[in-house]
Amino acid sequence: MKIAIYPGSFDPITNGHLDILERATSLFDKVIITIARNSTKHPLFTEEERLKLMREAVKQYKQVEVDSFEGLLVDYCRTKKAIAVVRGLRAISDFEYELQMALMNRKLNPHIQTVFLMPNERYTYLNSTIVREIARLGGDVRDFVPPVVKAALDKKFNKKKR
Amino acid sequence: MKIAIYPGSFDPITNGHLDILERATSLFDKVIITIARNSTKHPLFTEEERLKLMREAVKQYKQVEVDSFEGLLVDYCRTKKAIAVVRGLRAISDFEYELQMALMNRKLNPHIQTVFLMPNERYTYLNSTIVREIARLGGDVRDFVPPVVKAALDKKFNKKKR
Amino acid sequence: MKIAIYPGSFDPITNGHLDILERATSLFDKVIITIARNSTKHPLFTEEERLKLMREAVKQYKQVEVDSFEGLLVDYCRTKKAIAVVRGLRAISDFEYELQMALMNRKLNPHIQTVFLMPNERYTYLNSTIVREIARLGGDVRDFVPPVVKAALDKKFNKKKR
Amino acid sequence: MKIAIYPGSFDPITNGHLDILERATSLFDKVIITIARNSTKHPLFTEEERLKLMREAVKQYKQVEVDSFEGLLVDYCRTKKAIAVVRGLRAISDFEYELQMALMNRKLNPHIQTVFLMPNERYTYLNSTIVREIARLGGDVRDFVPPVVKAALDKKFNKKKR
Amino acid sequence: MKIAIYPGSFDPITNGHLDILERATSLFDKVIITIARNSTKHPLFTEEERLKLMREAVKQYKQVEVDSFEGLLVDYCRTKKAIAVVRGLRAISDFEYELQMALMNRKLNPHIQTVFLMPNERYTYLNSTIVREIARLGGDVRDFVPPVVKAALDKKFNKKKR
Amino acid sequence: MKIAIYPGSFDPITNGHLDILERATSLFDKVIITIARNSTKHPLFTEEERLKLMREAVKQYKQVEVDSFEGLLVDYCRTKKAIAVVRGLRAISDFEYELQMALMNRKLNPHIQTVFLMPNERYTYLNSTIVREIARLGGDVRDFVPPVVKAALDKKFNKKKR
Repeated sequence: MKIAIYPGSFDPITNGHLDILERATSLFDKVIITIARNSTKHPLFTEEERLKLMREAVKQYKQVEVDSFEGLLVDYCRTKKAIAVVRGLRAISDFEYELQMALMNRKLNPHIQTVFLMPNERYTYLNSTIVREIARLGGDVRDFVPPVVKAALDKKFNKKKR
Repeated sequence: MKIAIYPGSFDPITNGHLDILERATSLFDKVIITIARNSTKHPLFTEEERLKLMREAVKQYKQVEVDSFEGLLVDYCRTKKAIAVVRGLRAISDFEYELQMALMNRKLNPHIQTVFLMPNERYTYLNSTIVREIARLGGDVRDFVPPVVKAALDKKFNKKKR
Repeated sequence: MKIAIYPGSFDPITNGHLDILERATSLFDKVIITIARNSTKHPLFTEEERLKLMREAVKQYKQVEVDSFEGLLVDYCRTKKAIAVVRGLRAISDFEYELQMALMNRKLNPHIQTVFLMPNERYTYLNSTIVREIARLGGDVRDFVPPVVKAALDKKFNKKKR
Repeated sequence: MKIAIYPGSFDPITNGHLDILERATSLFDKVIITIARNSTKHPLFTEEERLKLMREAVKQYKQVEVDSFEGLLVDYCRTKKAIAVVRGLRAISDFEYELQMALMNRKLNPHIQTVFLMPNERYTYLNSTIVREIARLGGDVRDFVPPVVKAALDKKFNKKKR
Repeated sequence: MKIAIYPGSFDPITNGHLDILERATSLFDKVIITIARNSTKHPLFTEEERLKLMREAVKQYKQVEVDSFEGLLVDYCRTKKAIAVVRGLRAISDFEYELQMALMNRKLNPHIQTVFLMPNERYTYLNSTIVREIARLGGDVRDFVPPVVKAALDKKFNKKKR
Repeated sequence: MKIAIYPGSFDPITNGHLDILERATSLFDKVIITIARNSTKHPLFTEEERLKLMREAVKQYKQVEVDSFEGLLVDYCRTKKAIAVVRGLRAISDFEYELQMALMNRKLNPHIQTVFLMPNERYTYLNSTIVREIARLGGDVRDFVPPVVKAALDKKFNKKKR
């Protein structure tokens, strides 16, 4: 069974992440979408909240597992018997950072491939930071995130306002 | 069986191509490395020569098939029942062209994923054009191509000189 | 009256060009879409064919004029009393070339502004070259060009095949 | 009347900003240069100081209004009946961030165009961050900012030193 | 005597820095590798620790001096009678930042050249941030830093864990 | 004596080239500016014309020699006992090509450093191609090239017109 890891901070998970995840399921037998703990210093959502939102958002995918991990990604891959790391590649700024991470991971474990997939062009300029920013300013994020995440963002920012 | 296509002009095949090919074999059950006919207007090597060099260069890989095709890549993928197109991603200039091609192919057939793999950093700045140029100027290309290609380049440029 | 020039080779005009043109009409009182003659050495469509396709494609826009010119763009702008040159900005490779051209034009006439507009993200990776290539290989270009251009491409490549 | 918004943090306003502003006045009937409140977490100058510096720096332009706003830029544009957002485009790093913001704003309000203008090449590598850094280290910023801003920077860093 | 300055935060010095330093020694009579104090807000290693590690790491180079400085780089160059600033150029993201710094330094002192050198491609994606991150997560950094730095990182992160 | 090579096609030499050349003379004892023969397939100026224009344009520099060469650049460097190759670095598109060439040259001879210098920002978007294009269209190139080159361009394009 060919297993791939899709790591990230997912703060929160967006439609762009789901687009990449779906593409990965067509290539691998199992895809583990996993939160890199401590990757974000002051996340908007706690690890538990993010895991809950992700579980809700991916429940239609049979081959997908939701998880979180700490430490080196390559060590986590070994534990999970994964042969590949999946990453979305949208823009140039992504590209350099992603290549750097891919190369460092390869140095640490040459047997794991980083596989770059391209999201739908609708998601080229979408990321979690901008979604949080729009939600914070009271904008409508329904085109960018699954309904469960939109509800959580609304709740988070209403709570903060009061 | 998960089949991937690795298309290119391969004029000639380099160690960078072989590096990507080997990575692809760890992800897919079968990889078809295939010459896009007419992709190069005045190739150094004829299609037949390139096929011969490729067959020689990839013979150690069990899961690899060598081929050539004409027309749209997505139509060729359908014929071969491939689920993915494999491309090496080295530098920014690659990146934009590759994303453009990937997106166009996706518009023409949304069921085929383009999978970008990163070559060993030794091959970051290696491509067929520069190999041909160095060989043409009498430089030593043994670090950049398999022995059979080096021999073919030597023969090609010696023949031309006389 | 604020007049802008939208120059290009338009070989052929695509939906991406029309998208930029429409945006320009919301900013300026009149937009002249104009073929830079000699900008392409061996165009697929003659200047006359391109003008005809453009006229057909833009006929719904009241403020738009179709034209062609020879010589320096800044001289043409002066003749047309234009205050701005409009250019679409899609990708990094565009960006550098466009900035170079904008800067050179500014050196030659500092009173004309180059205004960069961003097409709909659907057209991020669309250009005339790829449209011609897909049409040449027998692919369906209906999502990329207006119907009149699709018809012209079909005719052009059928004629060539026989 | 065609109104454009030129938003930013302007901490402080530089000659590069003034260059873009002047170009914008040749294209639009009115340009509102406006501070996005909260866009900078720990600004060097308070909102009031920045507004005062901007008012002083732009007083020679008849069609220019100085303002500040909170919340989504597209909502602010609607209030001001603006048809366009003006942004300077200097370097690649700008380019991607700017495209991302432009696209997100377009999703939130498709009727507002983002118009990118290119500053004089003298200002290609100038931004507020580097101006603050040079001033902080005691360098001379007179080529980079209007006199009123130079005076304010000198005062700010002398005060801090004592 | 032609003197060059190689400035940075060196938190800690890596094999990539040493590669650039060695190249610089073939071009100049003397190279001063120097820590820009305050360039990093919360360094992992104190200035004293970094100086000590650098002295150890460069002791095989006769023409190299280790130092640190405060204030503007161009003022420091003048004090040291340096004609050039040496910088490594690895990736696009480097490139823009480096050009910006080079240009600003040139405005402040036109007589000092910034000289960009390219590290061995093995170090293309190596920087101090990623080295600290891998060490923090318990990964092996022996391929990326000199032995003395590896020892210091091990000590630092073991001490922190307890 | 430290010798550097400044290679190019120089078709024709521009003020941007002279800017880089002058910077190189402050770093090296001797700089050989040299035409890579055959680097351009259909040059506007013959090798003899280009050499003559270069000799005229650089005559004020004592340490500069004008030459041309054929074959591999690294072999030419060895013959000339040069320790460095000088290249101007203006834009991203330059950057990738230049890094590729630098890396390939390093593989062929590890003892020669490629030294990248940054031209005055006035020349960021200047190159020989755009100068030829402007001259061809009848534009004024006096800000971009030395007087002797302007005269040669005028003569070349007047001759062609008649």
